[in-house]
Amino acid sequence: MLDMKSKNPVINQILDAYKPIWSIKHATALMEWDFETYMPRKGTEERGVADSQLHLLYKERLLSKDFVDLVESAKKQEGLDNLERGVIRMLDRKITKETKIPKELTEAESLERIEGNMVWRQARAKSDFKLYEPHLEKMVEIKKQIADKIGYEKHPYDALLDTFEEDLTVADLDRVFDVLTPRIQRILKKLVDSGSPFCNESSLGRQEYDIQQVDALNREILTLMQFDMERFRMDISTHPFTQSMSLNDVRITTRYEGTDFKRSISSTIHEGGHALYDLQCDQSLSATPVEGGSSLAIHESQSRFWENIVGRSRPFVQLVSPLIRKHVSFADQASDDELYLYFNTVKPDYIRVDADEVTYNLHIAIRYEIEKKIIEDKLAVSEIPEFWNDRMEQLLGVRPARDSQGALQDTHWSSGLFGYFPTYTLGNLVSAMIASKMRQDLTDYQENIRKGDFKPIREWLRLKIHQYGSVYAPKTLLQNIFNEGYNPDYFIKYIEDKYLMS
Amino acid sequence: MLDMKSKNPVINQILDAYKPIWSIKHATALMEWDFETYMPRKGTEERGVADSQLHLLYKERLLSKDFVDLVESAKKQEGLDNLERGVIRMLDRKITKETKIPKELTEAESLERIEGNMVWRQARAKSDFKLYEPHLEKMVEIKKQIADKIGYEKHPYDALLDTFEEDLTVADLDRVFDVLTPRIQRILKKLVDSGSPFCNESSLGRQEYDIQQVDALNREILTLMQFDMERFRMDISTHPFTQSMSLNDVRITTRYEGTDFKRSISSTIHEGGHALYDLQCDQSLSATPVEGGSSLAIHESQSRFWENIVGRSRPFVQLVSPLIRKHVSFADQASDDELYLYFNTVKPDYIRVDADEVTYNLHIAIRYEIEKKIIEDKLAVSEIPEFWNDRMEQLLGVRPARDSQGALQDTHWSSGLFGYFPTYTLGNLVSAMIASKMRQDLTDYQENIRKGDFKPIREWLRLKIHQYGSVYAPKTLLQNIFNEGYNPDYFIKYIEDKYLMS
Repeated sequence: MLDMKSKNPVINQILDAYKPIWSIKHATALMEWDFETYMPRKGTEERGVADSQLHLLYKERLLSKDFVDLVESAKKQEGLDNLERGVIRMLDRKITKETKIPKELTEAESLERIEGNMVWRQARAKSDFKLYEPHLEKMVEIKKQIADKIGYEKHPYDALLDTFEEDLTVADLDRVFDVLTPRIQRILKKLVDSGSPFCNESSLGRQEYDIQQVDALNREILTLMQFDMERFRMDISTHPFTQSMSLNDVRITTRYEGTDFKRSISSTIHEGGHALYDLQCDQSLSATPVEGGSSLAIHESQSRFWENIVGRSRPFVQLVSPLIRKHVSFADQASDDELYLYFNTVKPDYIRVDADEVTYNLHIAIRYEIEKKIIEDKLAVSEIPEFWNDRMEQLLGVRPARDSQGALQDTHWSSGLFGYFPTYTLGNLVSAMIASKMRQDLTDYQENIRKGDFKPIREWLRLKIHQYGSVYAPKTLLQNIFNEGYNPDYFIKYIEDKYLMS
Repeated sequence: MLDMKSKNPVINQILDAYKPIWSIKHATALMEWDFETYMPRKGTEERGVADSQLHLLYKERLLSKDFVDLVESAKKQEGLDNLERGVIRMLDRKITKETKIPKELTEAESLERIEGNMVWRQARAKSDFKLYEPHLEKMVEIKKQIADKIGYEKHPYDALLDTFEEDLTVADLDRVFDVLTPRIQRILKKLVDSGSPFCNESSLGRQEYDIQQVDALNREILTLMQFDMERFRMDISTHPFTQSMSLNDVRITTRYEGTDFKRSISSTIHEGGHALYDLQCDQSLSATPVEGGSSLAIHESQSRFWENIVGRSRPFVQLVSPLIRKHVSFADQASDDELYLYFNTVKPDYIRVDADEVTYNLHIAIRYEIEKKIIEDKLAVSEIPEFWNDRMEQLLGVRPARDSQGALQDTHWSSGLFGYFPTYTLGNLVSAMIASKMRQDLTDYQENIRKGDFKPIREWLRLKIHQYGSVYAPKTLLQNIFNEGYNPDYFIKYIEDKYLMS
């Protein structure tokens, strides 16, 4: 199982030499999972020491002359197959990322992450952007220098985008948002202006639920989704996440806040979608550099496909509504229709993480515009709050009264994640591309969901996407499946059909 | 906190260079804990790869020329204090252990552990010693070769004993068992012949308990023992164990078999005793080579002190009996006296892990005799079952009818643990030495237990033992506290007082 046996001796040497590197990653992945779930709180300082030391060992091993020479010599090999080229591509990206950025910049960023994050927390609590401003300026400066060191052809932001999503460029994203933003804006306006039933807030979200009951409910939904509990588990954490220790040990967490139970259900299904990507990767890729998903956007397409396109669909709500009525006492009389509207309430609001499917990408559009302008010096850090609020008003029709509801809401910038936000929108677009193609390929698609028969859907995803791990770069993978790149049309049509036609 | 700042620059260099080694140990400790508690079962194969790769990295780093040179140069330093000498001593032991045994022997043992353990499981299930015999012969052969490579002055078994308990020799153990075995044998005979109430089996052990209730009971007992839940946690596993990720992250597990609830309570207190050793180590030793306990025997003295000397004492049973009556439905009418006798039932029987305080060391005496004879070729592997059964009959008055109840019951030999068993008895002896001295030092010793005021006991243990970690070798530590070595007299007196005088 653990051998991706290649005919090429250099590739086999690489896979062997990768084993200790993979093992360090395995250990740090477990440490991260443990940190968020079970670690006694006062173990933090020692855990921090172990974590940074293991990252140093990882880097030392990855950049060792022997290993880099092997990868370089493999790049010159002829007649490699797709899988072997995938291995080289992934390692080359990892090595390049670690080599191009000078140590001083990496250290400066690490330090600024800790300090900036701390100050950002204070600033958010006080809703005081000015407090955080000098730190954001410093981080932007570091990011610009990093972009220069990585190098780019057209736009410095391209260099940063590529670190999160292979080959993603400003040109790609402009093409996407130039269409997506105005179209969604128009749909939203129609919904609000027409007093659509989707815009009525349900009282179901305001009542307190029994956490053990909703946990049981989530576990019944995972059973419906046919998760193999011998390769998978679910625990609880403040911020839900998915962590793969290996292809045969994939773990998700969910959250129980006590009210608005759909949030817990949606989190569970969302993380379940991420988990399925790794669980259905071909076993021969286990413990190799191509075992994970192809990219952040493709991974997000999986979680959003399950969370939104399946999980918020009418047949899925029909499927799980008896379970909801069983486990959520105050919903025991709720009709399928009421539950469907509760899961799909559209409300233009300030906070991205609480946004519905319709408004979500407008939040990302604003962040993308700001990041792009900031990196090319067309916007000053000090101008962010006003720009943010103006754009919120234009796109969503609401203007944050405080920066804690505006430019201070996300942790990303203080954590150095410039270029990350757009992958959320790309994930949404790809999830709709998948749904469109799947409906053509699977005749009983809706009916199968209603019956809880997810096998055809799982198998479609496995064959088209999951089995390949990261053998293919995201753009190649999309071309292979759809014969096109990130195309917003499918998502727009999905939203129109769901919210305006029904 | 994480700096044991030494005035000696070489020691400081060593402590720095030890950080990555410590970090790998931290990761593998977490992996072991996870394996026994939460890991999805099918993650085993990849976990095995990661585990062996990290052990190779550990070894590589520990035996790197730079590190070994540092330790060698430190050995020549003058004016080192106890703490600094402890660091060198511990590292020297680790390095020597890894260097003296040639790679082929280590690999042969690893292989035989896996194969032998597998066959031992089958043999135990079928109660067929002959099936396991060739594997045990092979393991004994490997162990003899290892003893030769390590070297010894008097007895080859000394070399093996030292790997588990620093400086422990056959001479030490003969001195112990020559006194202990006949004396305990005599006490046991008196108890059985006189029809002591300790020999009546209680019906409390035969009824099925509610696992959630006994879990709540265990947690209340840990609260009584004042565990800081921000540095400690308890989970469930088949075989209870303690695992320290660091001095500020110490975890125990307990077991819930459904009947005989004292087993679960005793396991919890036993592992709690181990945990307290690490939790009360001086914080300045964190992440250094001297952060753990001094030896297996000293560690076992801590677990046995809490499990038996405190946990099975009359005042402790009085303290927890209201909790037992609250959580164990069928014990709600049990008197303190009934519970005390239930916790202290003496029954000569076949299985070591189920043995009471009185008979336990007789089980170890037999294993010690066999190991010693086997290593010096005075007993053949094929002769073990008969020797075992004969000695059981002589010492405990019971003769196993099947080898699954006799020589096949323990996993130790198939796992290559020759020389480990005696540390259990030494732990028992030291626990009684501690109790004797503690009763002199703490006037209200019994009364404090009855009131649940464990602070004086915890503090005594901290000052005399825990704070030093493994700065002192076990024999030195014992000399410092008791002015003598492993002395069986205190244990014998403790057993006599408890079982014959009351």
